[in-house]
This record gives sequence, C-alpha cells and structure tokens, in this order.
Amino acid sequence: MNIGALLTSAGINIALCVVLFSFYSVLRKQPSNVNVYFGRRVASQHSRRIDLCLERFVPSPSWILKAWETSEDEILAIGGLDAVVFIRMVVFSIRVFSIAAVICIALVLPINYHGMGELHKNIPFESLEVFTIENVKEGSTWLWAHCLALYIITFSACTLLYFDDAEHMCKVVVSLEKTCKSSFRPCCSGALTNSFKKISTEMNSVNGRTGNTDMHLDPAKKECPAAFVFFKSRYAALMAAKVLQTPNPMLWVTDVAPEPHDVYWSNICIPYRQLWIRKIATLVASIAFMLVFLIPVTFVQGLTQLDKVQKMFPFLRGILEEKVVNQVVTGYLPSVILVLFLCAVPPVMMLFSSVEGSISRSERKKSACCKVIYFTIWNVFFVNVFTGSVISQLSVFSSVTDLPAQLAKAVPAQATFFTTYVLSSGWASLAYEVMQIFPLLCNIFQRLILRLKEDALDGTLSFPYHTEVPRVLLFGFLGFTCSILAPLMLPFLLFYFFLAYLVYRNQIINVYITKYDSGGQFWPIAHNTTVFSLLFSQLIALGVFGLKRSSVASGFTIPLLIGTLLFHQYCRQRFLPIFRSNSAQVIIDMDLRDEHCGRMDEIYEHLPVAYTQPSLMQHASSQPECVKRHEDMDRGQSSSQDMEKGNEIIKKDRQRPVQRSLSLNSDKAVLGVNL
Amino acid sequence: MNIGALLTSAGINIALCVVLFSFYSVLRKQPSNVNVYFGRRVASQHSRRIDLCLERFVPSPSWILKAWETSEDEILAIGGLDAVVFIRMVVFSIRVFSIAAVICIALVLPINYHGMGELHKNIPFESLEVFTIENVKEGSTWLWAHCLALYIITFSACTLLYFDDAEHMCKVVVSLEKTCKSSFRPCCSGALTNSFKKISTEMNSVNGRTGNTDMHLDPAKKECPAAFVFFKSRYAALMAAKVLQTPNPMLWVTDVAPEPHDVYWSNICIPYRQLWIRKIATLVASIAFMLVFLIPVTFVQGLTQLDKVQKMFPFLRGILEEKVVNQVVTGYLPSVILVLFLCAVPPVMMLFSSVEGSISRSERKKSACCKVIYFTIWNVFFVNVFTGSVISQLSVFSSVTDLPAQLAKAVPAQATFFTTYVLSSGWASLAYEVMQIFPLLCNIFQRLILRLKEDALDGTLSFPYHTEVPRVLLFGFLGFTCSILAPLMLPFLLFYFFLAYLVYRNQIINVYITKYDSGGQFWPIAHNTTVFSLLFSQLIALGVFGLKRSSVASGFTIPLLIGTLLFHQYCRQRFLPIFRSNSAQVIIDMDLRDEHCGRMDEIYEHLPVAYTQPSLMQHASSQPECVKRHEDMDRGQSSSQDMEKGNEIIKKDRQRPVQRSLSLNSDKAVLGVNL
Repeated sequence: MNIGALLTSAGINIALCVVLFSFYSVLRKQPSNVNVYFGRRVASQHSRRIDLCLERFVPSPSWILKAWETSEDEILAIGGLDAVVFIRMVVFSIRVFSIAAVICIALVLPINYHGMGELHKNIPFESLEVFTIENVKEGSTWLWAHCLALYIITFSACTLLYFDDAEHMCKVVVSLEKTCKSSFRPCCSGALTNSFKKISTEMNSVNGRTGNTDMHLDPAKKECPAAFVFFKSRYAALMAAKVLQTPNPMLWVTDVAPEPHDVYWSNICIPYRQLWIRKIATLVASIAFMLVFLIPVTFVQGLTQLDKVQKMFPFLRGILEEKVVNQVVTGYLPSVILVLFLCAVPPVMMLFSSVEGSISRSERKKSACCKVIYFTIWNVFFVNVFTGSVISQLSVFSSVTDLPAQLAKAVPAQATFFTTYVLSSGWASLAYEVMQIFPLLCNIFQRLILRLKEDALDGTLSFPYHTEVPRVLLFGFLGFTCSILAPLMLPFLLFYFFLAYLVYRNQIINVYITKYDSGGQFWPIAHNTTVFSLLFSQLIALGVFGLKRSSVASGFTIPLLIGTLLFHQYCRQRFLPIFRSNSAQVIIDMDLRDEHCGRMDEIYEHLPVAYTQPSLMQHASSQPECVKRHEDMDRGQSSSQDMEKGNEIIKKDRQRPVQRSLSLNSDKAVLGVNL
Repeated sequence: MNIGALLTSAGINIALCVVLFSFYSVLRKQPSNVNVYFGRRVASQHSRRIDLCLERFVPSPSWILKAWETSEDEILAIGGLDAVVFIRMVVFSIRVFSIAAVICIALVLPINYHGMGELHKNIPFESLEVFTIENVKEGSTWLWAHCLALYIITFSACTLLYFDDAEHMCKVVVSLEKTCKSSFRPCCSGALTNSFKKISTEMNSVNGRTGNTDMHLDPAKKECPAAFVFFKSRYAALMAAKVLQTPNPMLWVTDVAPEPHDVYWSNICIPYRQLWIRKIATLVASIAFMLVFLIPVTFVQGLTQLDKVQKMFPFLRGILEEKVVNQVVTGYLPSVILVLFLCAVPPVMMLFSSVEGSISRSERKKSACCKVIYFTIWNVFFVNVFTGSVISQLSVFSSVTDLPAQLAKAVPAQATFFTTYVLSSGWASLAYEVMQIFPLLCNIFQRLILRLKEDALDGTLSFPYHTEVPRVLLFGFLGFTCSILAPLMLPFLLFYFFLAYLVYRNQIINVYITKYDSGGQFWPIAHNTTVFSLLFSQLIALGVFGLKRSSVASGFTIPLLIGTLLFHQYCRQRFLPIFRSNSAQVIIDMDLRDEHCGRMDEIYEHLPVAYTQPSLMQHASSQPECVKRHEDMDRGQSSSQDMEKGNEIIKKDRQRPVQRSLSLNSDKAVLGVNL
C-alpha cells in the first residue's frame, strides 16, 4: 500500500464524515427526530418542545460548540460518574497521543524515512513501509531516538495516569460519595441497603425467578433465595456486607445491594451455588466465540495482500488490476467488512454477561465491556498480526522463545493496516454514532408506517459503554504499539480522539439517559488496559531493537519495562481498593450528615418503595414478600432507643472538633484515631 | 539402572534406617538427651525427670507404639491445629497411595512388563525401564488400563480431599474456634485485638523498629507506625479489620492481630507503603535463587547417566567400571548430593520471608513454606526432568505446542531416578529427623565442652513446617506423576508415608513445642498442591497416550482434566473463605459464651499485658507507648453504659432461644436471620 492508497482511504472517510455530520446537523433540527437526537432532554424535561430556529435545513456546527462548552460538572450531573470516566479516557488519550505525535513525527519519522539512505520515489508513490521502523538499517546508531521516544511516551502516560487521572478519579469518586445529591444519584439510599442471598439446603418451592407469583404465598412456609435487608445506617450495611457470615460460605452470602434502578431483577434469585459454574460456562463460551470469529478475520486479512488474492482467485485478476478497484479493495474494504462483523459482538457478550448471573445492570455492562475488550484486542490486533504473517510463513508459534522476535517482525508489517483501520473504523464509527442510524430508521418506520403518535415513541437508551469503552481503549492500544514503529498513524489517531471528544460529549448531553451508574467502575478497566498497552509496546520495541541488533536500545528498554510493572503494582495498591469498596470514613461522614440534616426519616420512608420489582407493581401487594418480611424483622429488633444512642455519640463528636476524632459507631467498641 | 542397583540402594537405606532408628530408641532413653528428644515435655511439665526404665541400652520399639496410639484430639491439644493439618496430609497420602498401589501393581505393572512381548532377562538384571510405560508398544490396546487407573486415582484423591479431609478440616477449624480453650490456644484473646498500621504523611521520628527506645518519648509529639487497638468484642474487632478505613488505602490499614506469641515484633513497624516493594523484591530474589541452584542439580543429574560421565571424564573410567562403585554412584550418590544442597534452601527462604514483612511468625513460616514448595517442585522435578533430557537433546524448549509431548518423553525416562530419590531422600530424611542429629551434637558440645548445667540447656524448637510440609507434598507430587508411568515406585513411597506418620507423630508429641499456630493455614497449600499434582499427572498421561498413539485413552483423559479443574474451582468457593476469615456467626457465638460465663473481665484484665514486646520487658514501662496510648483512647471513648447496652442485646437474644435468631451486634442495626 502506498501513500496514494492511504490518501484515497482518508479521502473517502473524510468525505463520508463531512456528509454524515452535515446530515446530522440538519436532521437534529427536525422536530420529528427529537426522540432520536434529544432523547435524554425529552425524558428529563417531559416536554417535546425544543427551541428550533428557522434555518433548520442548513448544516451548522452549533452542536460542536455546545459539546465543547459543557463543563465536567455538568457532564457529571447529566451522565453520572461513568460518563465522566469515559470522557476522561478520551481526554487522557488526546493528551498522551499529542505528546507522542510531536515526539514521533519530529524525531522518529525522519529517522525512519532516511533509514536506508537510498533514493526515494515521489511521495505519492512512496510505499508506507518507508515510514515505518522496517526502513531502518540493521545495527543503526539512530535507534536511540526510538528508545528515547518510548521513554517519553511511557513517562507521560504514567504521569498522566497517576496525577491529572487516577488521583482525580479517586477524588471524584470520594467527593461524589460525600456530596451524594439525591436528585441525580440515588446511591445514598442504595448504600443504606444490603442484598443477601440465602440458600437453604432444602430449596423447596421458590426455585424460580422473583417474577414467579409463588412469591406471594405464606412466607412462613417458603424459603427465599434472595432478600434485601435494610439497615439504619450505611456503616452497618457495609459491615454486614463485608464479613463472612457463616462457617459454610455457600450457605448464605451478603453483598452491598445495587441502586434500585440498577437491580437486574431476573438474576436476583439465581442460587449462589450456581454462580461459579455459570461464570466458568460463560468464560468457555466467550473463548469459543473468539475462536469461531477467526474465520471472517482471516478472510479480511487476505484482502490487504492483493497479490495473494490474485493468485488464489485468478479469474479476479482483470478487475483487481484496475487502479481504483485495487485501491478501494486494499485500502477500504477489509476494514469495513471487519467493522460489520464486529457489530455482532457486543450483543453476544451482553447475553453472556446476563447468563453469568450479575445482579446489577451496571455490573452486567462492566462484565460485557471486559469481554468485548479481550475480544477486540485479540481479534483485531493479534489475529490480524498473526494471520498476516501466517500467509507468508506458516510456523509462527513454532517457538516460544522467538515470540517477541516474531511479534517484532509481524507488527511493523501490519502497522499500515492499522492506520487504515483507524481511518475507516474509527472515524466512520463516530459518524455512525452521532447519526444514530438504527434509531433514526426505527423512528421513521414507526412514524410513517405504523403511524404511532409522538408520545408513544420512546427511543431513549442508556450509554453503550460496553461497545464504546473497548473501542476507545483499542485505539489507545493501537496507538501505543504503533507509535514508534509507524508514526504516520498518530495524526489520524489524534484526529479520531478529538472527534470522539466532541461526539461523545454531545451524545451524553443530548441522547442517552442515565438510568443507572456503576460508580466509576470503568476506570480500573481503562487503567489496566493502558498499562498493558504500554508493556506490550515495550515488549515489541524490545523485539525490534533485538532484530535491528541495537544492544544499547534493547538494554535501555528493559529497565523501562520493569519500571512500568512496578508502577502498575503501586497503582493497584494505591487506587484499586477505593473502586472495590466504600471506605468507612466516607460512609460514616454520610451517615452523620444525614442525621444532622434530619433526612433520615425521609430516607426510611423512601426505602420500602425503592426496591420494588417492576413486574410486581401490578399486583395488590406493592413489594415482594421477602423484601417486606426481612425489613419488618429488622424494624422489630431495633428500638427507638438505639436511634437516640446513635445521635448521642454523634453529638459527643461534634463537641470536640479540635481533636477531629472519628468515631466508627459499631456497637460496643469505638475505634478512636487521631487524623 | 537395573533391579540390582535399585535393591542396592534400598538395602543401604534400609540398613541406615534400622541403625538410626535403633540408635534413636537407645539415645532417647539417656537422661542427658532429655532436652533433645523430649523438649516439649520438659517445657510443658517444667520437670526434667522422665520415667526411665532399666533397659536403657537395649533398642526397643516402644516409641512406635506410643506414636501409633495417640489420638487426634491429643495431637490437637499438644501440637495445635497445624500439627493436625500436617498429620492429615500424611494420612491423606497413605490412603490415596494405598489405593494407587493396589490398582497400579495389580493392573498397570503387568501390562508394562509384558508390553513389548519380548523375552525378559533374569529379574535381578532386568532394567527398571521394563517396568515403566516406556515398555508398552505404540498403539497398544492395553492403554485403557492406564487410563482407568488414572480415573480411579483422581476420583479417590478428590473424594478423600473433599469428604474425610477438606470438610473435616473446616469442621475442626470452626469447632476449634468454638471451643477455644484458653489453656492451649490463646486465640480468643488474639481475636479480641486488632493491629493497625498508621502511616502519616509526615513520618517524623519513629521510623525505626519498635525496639527503638525513642518510643518512650512524649507520645503527643510522635506518630506511631503501628498500633494494637483493643475492642470490647471479637465481632467489633473483625468488623474494623475487614473494612477499608479511609479513602486513601495507603494512609492506614487495619488487619486482625496475630496471637500474642505469634507477633513478629521486628516487622511490626515496617511502613505499609514499603510492603508491596518488599514483596516484589523477595519474589525476584527467590526466583534468582532458584536459577542459581540449577548448577548443583545439573551436576547431580549427570551422575545418573554414567556412560555420559565416563565420556566427559575418561580418567574415571577405571573406577566407574567396578560394579559396586557403579551401583553406588548411579543409585545413591546423586540423591545424597541433592539432599545436602537442599538443606540450605529453607533457611534462605525463611530469611526472604522475614524481609518480606510478615507481622506474624506463623505467616512468615507459611510464606517460607510456599516458597520452598515452588523451589523443590521446580528444582527436584522439572529441572531433573529437563536437564536429563538436555544432555541427550538440547532443544527442549524449542517448541511450545510440543511441550506436553516433550514432558511425556522426559518424565518416564526420569521415573527411575525419582524412585531412588524416594528411597534416599525420603527414608533417610525421616531417620535424620527422628535422630535430631544437629541438636544432639549441640547438646553434647554444650554438656561436655562448655559444661553448662542442665537448666541452662534449652533446645526446644517449634515444628519446622516450612521444611516438612514441602517434603511431604513433593513426595505426593512424585507419587501422582509417576504412579501410572512407573508403578514400581509406589511401594517405596507408601513405606515412606507410613514411616512419616509414626515419626512426625512422635516428634509432635515429644520434641517440638507449639509457641504459635497458624490456625490450619497449611491446609489450603496442601490442597492446592495436590490438585496441581493431579492436573499435572493427567497432562503427562495425555502426552504419553498421544505418543503411544492411543486416541481412546487420550480422549478419555480430557474430560478427567476438565472435571478436576471444576472440582478445584468448586473447592475454592466452598472452603477457601473459611481459611481466609473468621465467620461472624462463630465469632458472635464466642462473644456470647464469654459474656455468659462472665469471662470478659478476666480477658480484659489479661489484654494489656498480652501484647508486650519481649525486648521492652526490661524497661520500667511494661508495654510500648503506642499500645498503651491507643488502648487508653479506646477506653476513654467507650463508657460503661455501652457495655451495659451490649449485655442488654445479648440478654434479649437469650430470651428467645426457639427462634434461634442471631444478632450481629453492630451499633445501630441488627441483622436478623432465621437459621
């Protein structure tokens, strides 16, 4: 593939993007599409009237301005913590790849281009391989520049990941838990509760889902497979959730309940002893799915190496030798086919995650997100790299010690494919995302053919983190691995991230509603994937430096690799526990504040209604028996006297603010600590 | 190596064992050796007068009878839970390998022997290879017998591991926590406490160990790196230990304190933020140590293949061709050299575990135990297998997909070496263990040369689990991997385990004192190693069946492999949490019982003295400042009113025994559950 083919690909994509974004800026102004493009606003304001000016058929960039101007606090208020985390991932990528682009284009690209010192063709006919590290001579003394670039990229990535991002995310998570506005985030009532799964040895009749109407029989005769238990304070709930309850860990299990809107009701009554086997089964199914997916990927890969296709299918030779066809087939078609196949993946992974037994929607989405990340990185990157090499050389896995060297050979050779992949898959996916083509078509179908009234149209969706997080992380992965090998990719990638920043902010503000929130659980995933990408790029660089016989560059890469590993371990210690569990200090502060504001009564009243399974709403009894019963029992045991005592301790603490002693109000012991 | 050489080796070992055991039965009757052979009794009874009969110079098997007759409850009372766990490991091995020996010798051995259908030599000159699976023809229809034996061994191992053992151990752990005799196990007072490490950002002066006398300066001006906090109930302590305390997980960390005698004082003040880097450093050091150790192992391995040694050192040809020398060198010397080198390993690993930062002695021993297991299995098994093949064929790691096949080739070839290893290392190690040669020499040296008085002699040691657990597990590992490949090993192995059963019981009863106890933490290690051994033996069998072109046998091995993996996953879910944490139910029962018996006051009085650092005993202040200060604070905050309230709740519960409701007495919430 030469510069011409790349420019053809870029041209097609730019044209497509311009057309689609213009289309979008017109379509969003049509009153009939309000459902599609302003779903969140419609849902939150309960009004379909949106100020529409006269120039509704003229494309305009006003939405870009709006998306740019929205502050992080507004995003937090609108889209919840997950939206902030997601936008942070994009911002992090923009920052890192800006640095990488400056370094690599100023330092690495000229070295690659002049690597062989031979005469060059005219730029348009220049092969893209000339701009990659493959063009550097063996034993070249200039490889220190690549090593230096790798150091700068790693340091900036780790610094950004630690200071402007991981610390920032932790602060946001903590402060959010502290402020805890009930308006947008019902977490405070959620944290007051505790779901537990109780599995009796004689699991008699209620062995189905909670939707089963058996639930309404006499509770004294029935065993509940799961129950929500309400506590008087968040701290007590956290305590009960974190401790092993019985000597048989399969007998009954406690965990903090998800927020009311986040509960995935159809999974709530899966017996705990099924969960481990469900997890294993879905793991096996996901791996099988990954392997079956090799077939289309292998086919796609064949197309980029046109001479081999011509040999395999000689009757196509006539068509393929035409210049335009050739450039379209090698530059554009493979990526499009791959993208189409990849569309089927997220729904399948979501299905697997449902079967897995998550009791909250956010956990299900997070689990699907992880599966999609493994899937995409494996299928887009590794399989492309290896099938690309397999065609020329069958024994890739022949040797385990040669693996880094094999990667070092294969990855630079595939770097040009990844450049076109960024162009086609990246840019176009954003255009499709902003156009919302499928909801748009549904909307048109419903309005024009089914002739439904406006009020009956309900197209509001929640943000598809399980498709978008893996996409952003995959491009980050490609960026890190290819930055010093094929720096020509970076401008295209950077443009993708800029566009993504605008598009996703726009979508969060206007389109998607936030029904539930994982509380920033996507950040550890992004963090781990980024560190993995860094390590992997260093490993490939090590292999390449080895192949090019530059012992200095290889020597300097090893400490970098070790340093990155240590950084990762430190971050695991420093940040991961906060995402896994609430801290006692924050929880107690929240309890104290609520007591102080006198909001407790309000919350207690709200509680029994909060966890009501939607399918049971139609029945006379407004909540499942098992929820009711346990709550009653709880109330029966805790007297008003206890409440007063709680207040007493808190008052005591208030009286000595100088000492700033923190009272963990567990029953008989008070842990006092000077902060 | 032929049957003759094996019998020579067995003869030498049997003679050695008989001599040493006879010696032992005489030496133990000498009053001067009471310190060495009855250290525990001397320590516990505070008397050196042990009934010694007249026939003190006649060998007698009375100790065997005594060791045999002691019941498990007595072992528990004498040696603690760890001793029971250890004896259980040996019993489990005896049971499994009895079954394996019957099956393999009745079914597998004849098939191996008649595998080639060729004429055999006289038995004494028969090569040992004739009894291994190497003697079975390719494509033999008799390999189903090996597969069947593998099934029977796996099933019996899993069944024993699950029912007579994992369940049994869990019951013992739980019931022990319930009975909790303060006489032998001070865990009840231990569980009442909670150590926490507090790391201030301005870690000013006390940055050393607690042994530092700075500790006695004005506490108001100093920050403590660590402190013990005492709680009024075990449940409160457990709660505080299990919950993340602050939003910054590195700021301060809580954990359940070890028992007073178990505290490893010199590590208690290591700042928490150093721990992760210490762990990584010791991991790296352990791996480096493993690799350096390859040198003696490679040398040892060379000796078993005498023809290669003769080629390398032609001047030795004369000596080596003599029959006796030949048999001693091939049959006995390699194992002895290996054993001597292995003696250096446990102290080194113990040192690494100290540096790692464990705050309890039992945890340090457990960590050293894990390191020694990895080390022995790697160095004794894998390196022997691979260096054995490396001499004949240099490219072992040439291919990753061929690895199972390579193992299948290499392991049966080394099976005869492992048979001699069981003979020399196994049997002899037991004889050395019972003889206590090093303490005996020390004792003689002290008595005869230093002329110390009897009272000054103090040779009591705690049981060296970190050397003995890995040894027993290694022989189990060898047994599983070699059982169907070389069944001739099993009788020797079984004899080893019988002897081990007697010897270790004797040592627990008479020699070692139990200063501290890990609470059965060695069981999960044994469980995991056993499952790993099973999986590994199945993998090798799979490779062997593949090499012998028996598709039926390979086909049936795969479901067995999957079944074992599922069994392991289930056991992790079912049993592991109990070993990781105390359950609330048990803890609350203990609290209630103590309240009921009125033992609380006694325990409270006992507490402040319990955690006293031995090195500070000589100072005027009888306990470290930080311990004192936090305890005071704790007492200051919890009024007697709280105590009464706690009693009130408990009394309330007492009044309704029919409902059997369990009250988790946290401050403001009571979790009621029908059991």
